[in-house]
Amino acid sequence: MNPKAIKGLQCHQCNWVVPAVPFSYTCPKCGKNLDFMYDYEEIGISWSKSDLAGNKEKSIWRYLPLLPVTRAPEKISLRIGGTPLVDFPEIAEKSKIRSFQIKDDSRNPSGSLKDRASELAIQHARELGQDTIVAASTGNAGSSLAALSAYHGVKSVIFAPASAPPAKLTQIMQYGAQLVAVEANYDTAFDLAFEWATKHQKYCRNTGINSILAEGKKTVAIEIAEENNWQVPDHIFVPVGDGCIISGIFKGFFDLLALGWIDAMPALHAVQAEGSAAIVNSLSRGGEVTALVADTIADSISVNLPRDGDKARRAILESGGLGFKVNDTKILRAQKSLSETTGIFAEPAAAAAYAGFLQASKNGILKAGDHVVVLITGTGLKDTPAAQKLLKQFNPISADLGKIEAVLEGNAG
Amino acid sequence: MNPKAIKGLQCHQCNWVVPAVPFSYTCPKCGKNLDFMYDYEEIGISWSKSDLAGNKEKSIWRYLPLLPVTRAPEKISLRIGGTPLVDFPEIAEKSKIRSFQIKDDSRNPSGSLKDRASELAIQHARELGQDTIVAASTGNAGSSLAALSAYHGVKSVIFAPASAPPAKLTQIMQYGAQLVAVEANYDTAFDLAFEWATKHQKYCRNTGINSILAEGKKTVAIEIAEENNWQVPDHIFVPVGDGCIISGIFKGFFDLLALGWIDAMPALHAVQAEGSAAIVNSLSRGGEVTALVADTIADSISVNLPRDGDKARRAILESGGLGFKVNDTKILRAQKSLSETTGIFAEPAAAAAYAGFLQASKNGILKAGDHVVVLITGTGLKDTPAAQKLLKQFNPISADLGKIEAVLEGNAG
Repeated sequence: MNPKAIKGLQCHQCNWVVPAVPFSYTCPKCGKNLDFMYDYEEIGISWSKSDLAGNKEKSIWRYLPLLPVTRAPEKISLRIGGTPLVDFPEIAEKSKIRSFQIKDDSRNPSGSLKDRASELAIQHARELGQDTIVAASTGNAGSSLAALSAYHGVKSVIFAPASAPPAKLTQIMQYGAQLVAVEANYDTAFDLAFEWATKHQKYCRNTGINSILAEGKKTVAIEIAEENNWQVPDHIFVPVGDGCIISGIFKGFFDLLALGWIDAMPALHAVQAEGSAAIVNSLSRGGEVTALVADTIADSISVNLPRDGDKARRAILESGGLGFKVNDTKILRAQKSLSETTGIFAEPAAAAAYAGFLQASKNGILKAGDHVVVLITGTGLKDTPAAQKLLKQFNPISADLGKIEAVLEGNAG
Repeated sequence: MNPKAIKGLQCHQCNWVVPAVPFSYTCPKCGKNLDFMYDYEEIGISWSKSDLAGNKEKSIWRYLPLLPVTRAPEKISLRIGGTPLVDFPEIAEKSKIRSFQIKDDSRNPSGSLKDRASELAIQHARELGQDTIVAASTGNAGSSLAALSAYHGVKSVIFAPASAPPAKLTQIMQYGAQLVAVEANYDTAFDLAFEWATKHQKYCRNTGINSILAEGKKTVAIEIAEENNWQVPDHIFVPVGDGCIISGIFKGFFDLLALGWIDAMPALHAVQAEGSAAIVNSLSRGGEVTALVADTIADSISVNLPRDGDKARRAILESGGLGFKVNDTKILRAQKSLSETTGIFAEPAAAAAYAGFLQASKNGILKAGDHVVVLITGTGLKDTPAAQKLLKQFNPISADLGKIEAVLEGNAG
C-alpha cells in the first residue's frame, strides 16, 4: 500500500484515531479493538479492477494496494490465498436457491484460513523491525504462524492450551516454533501471550487485538468478490469463535464498497457452536458480548470470551446477517455430509458453517434467487479423531475373495 | 483430447499395440503395462503454447488436449493440480546450485498428488459408461479416489491394508467410500482389488496396470515445465514406491518433447526408502525388478513388488536419472528439516525425495548451474504420529508468567 493511503487506526467503539506507527494493539483511550482507516481516493488513483485483472500473482499479494504494509515479502511463491471457490449446482438445486459455493480455505499451506493473517502479520512485524512473533492459539493460528515463520525465516513463540488436538501441536513443533503448552484454556493462554510479548517487546499476533489480522483475513472476501466478477453473494456463512474472521470479511467488503468496486454488502451470518456461542447469544439479548464456559468439539471456535466480539457483532448487524447456534452432533453430521457431498473434508469448526447453512435452508431463510457462500476455514486432517466419532469402526476382512464378496454384496452397485 | 489423436495403447515391453476402446489394463500379449500413444502432429494442429497462455483454467483440465478423454468433467472448480511451485533461493545457495524449487502437491484437495490420477480416472470411467471405481491403496490413492468420487457423484470401493495410517482410513470412510480393510499388505490388497473388479466388471484404478493414471500424474510435469516458461529443470527428485508417479512424470516430458514444446528431458531421480527399494536395487543389479519384503515408515512408498517397476526403470534410465536409497531415520530428519526450512509439512514418503536431494547435494552430484525440483507428493497431516517420532514430548507449563519466562529464557531471542 502506498503509505499515504493509511489514515491511521480508529477505535471501533469510541472512534478515537491513532497513527499506524508506532503500532497500537488496542485503543489507548478505551481499550477496545481498532480498525485500519484508508484514504480510498488515494488508493483508487493508482489501482483499478483492470489492473487487477491483468495481475498474474495468485496469492493475497495481488491485493497489496489494499493491504497496510509497504511491500510484499521477498518470497511469495508458497502462495497464501488464491484458494478455490467451488460451485455446487446440485446443492443449490436441493436447497432451492440460485447458487451455492464453498470457499475452501483449507487449501492454504498450513491447512487453514489463518495463513492469510499470519502472512500479513509477519510482513508487518518485519516492517516494524521485529523478527520474533508471539501468538496465542487454539491450534490453527499457531500452526499457521509456525509454518509461515519457517518459510519467511522469522522466530515464533506459540502459546496454546496443552489440550489442543495433538495434530495441531505436532504441526507447531514440526515447523520449529517454540511451543508454550499452557495447562489452561485458550483464554488464559491469550492473556499470557500478550503479557509476555508486551513485557519482552515482541510482536504479538493475538487475534482481535491486533488489527492487522482482520486485514489479512479480509483477502478472502476480496477473492470471493473478484471470482464472482464483483457481483457479491447474498449470504455468507462464517464459523465464529473469537469473531476475527467475520470482522475481517466485513472489512474486506467495506473496503470494496468504499472503492466503489461492489455495490452491496452480503449478509454475513455467524455460526457458533451451541457450547461456545457468546457472540450469537449477545445478538438475541441485544447487549454486550459476555464470557461463558465454552464446551464444544469444534476446538477452533471454542472460546470463553471472544476477543473480537464487538467487531463481530458490528459485522453481523451492519451486514444484515443472523446468528446461528449448532450443537456438536449437528456439527459432526454436517462434517460427514459435507465430505460425502462435496469431497471436502473440513474440520469441525469449519463444518459448523455448513451446519448453519443447512439450518437456514431448513428454516426458510433463503430465497429462490439467493447466492450463498459457505466459508470452510480449516482442514479435517488436523483433527481426524473428531471425525472418527461419527464413523463406524471398520472390520478388517481376511484376504479372501469369497469373504470380501460376502461383505460387499449389496453394498457396491 | 481430439479422439483422432489417440493412436492406441502400446506395451512398453513388447511394443504390441491395442486400441484404446475397449480399454485394456495390461498387454494382452505379454501382460506388461501399457502406454497411451498419441498423434502429436494432430494435437499440435489445434493447440499451441499461446493457446495455453490465454487459458484461465487453473486445474489439470487446462491440458485437456493432451489428456486421453473426450471432455472435462462437468464440475472442475474443486481444482485438481495447479499446485504451487515454490522457489527457495536460500536452499539453492546453500547447496551451491542455480535454482531450487519444491512442487507442493500436498495442496491438492485430498492432500496428495494422487488426485491428478483419480480425477482423470473418474472421467475415463464415465466415458466408458462405468460409475463404480475400485482401487487398492496404501492410503493416499484411496482417500483421493474417495474424495473425488464424492465430488463427482460416483461410487468407489477401496481395498487398503487394515494397518494403513488411521487418518488415511478415516479420510476414506469420511468421504463415504466403501472401505475394504484387508488383513494383509498392500500387494495382496492390490491383487484382490483387481480380481474383484474384473469379476464384477467394475472400473479398476489400481496403480501401474491402469495406464490412465500415469496420464493424470504427468500433468505435474507439464505444470513444472509451463511454470518455468518451458525451460525444464536439470534434476527432479521423485519419491518412488510403485513407480507410477515417476513413470507419469516421464510421460509428461516425453509428450512435451514430442510436441516440440521443450528441448530436453530432466534427469528423473528415484528416491526409495531403504526398506522398500526394489526399483533402485534393480538399477544397481542391472536386472529385473524383483519383490522384497518392504519395511519402512514411509507407508506411501512401502511396496513389496512395484506395480510400475519396469516403466519406472525406463523413466530413470532414459532420462539419465539415478536411484537413491534413504533410511527411515534420514527420512524423518529430512521431514523435520524440510518443515523448519520451508514451512512445508510433507508426509514421510514425500520427505524421502528431499532426503534424496540432500544426499545428492552432499555427494557432489549437483553442479553449480543446476536447477533442481523436489516433488512433494503428500501432506504430513495424514500421518502426524510419524512426525511425532522425532519430536520431543512437550512439557505442559502451568499458567504462570514467571514459570513461562523461566522456560523461554534463552530460547526466544
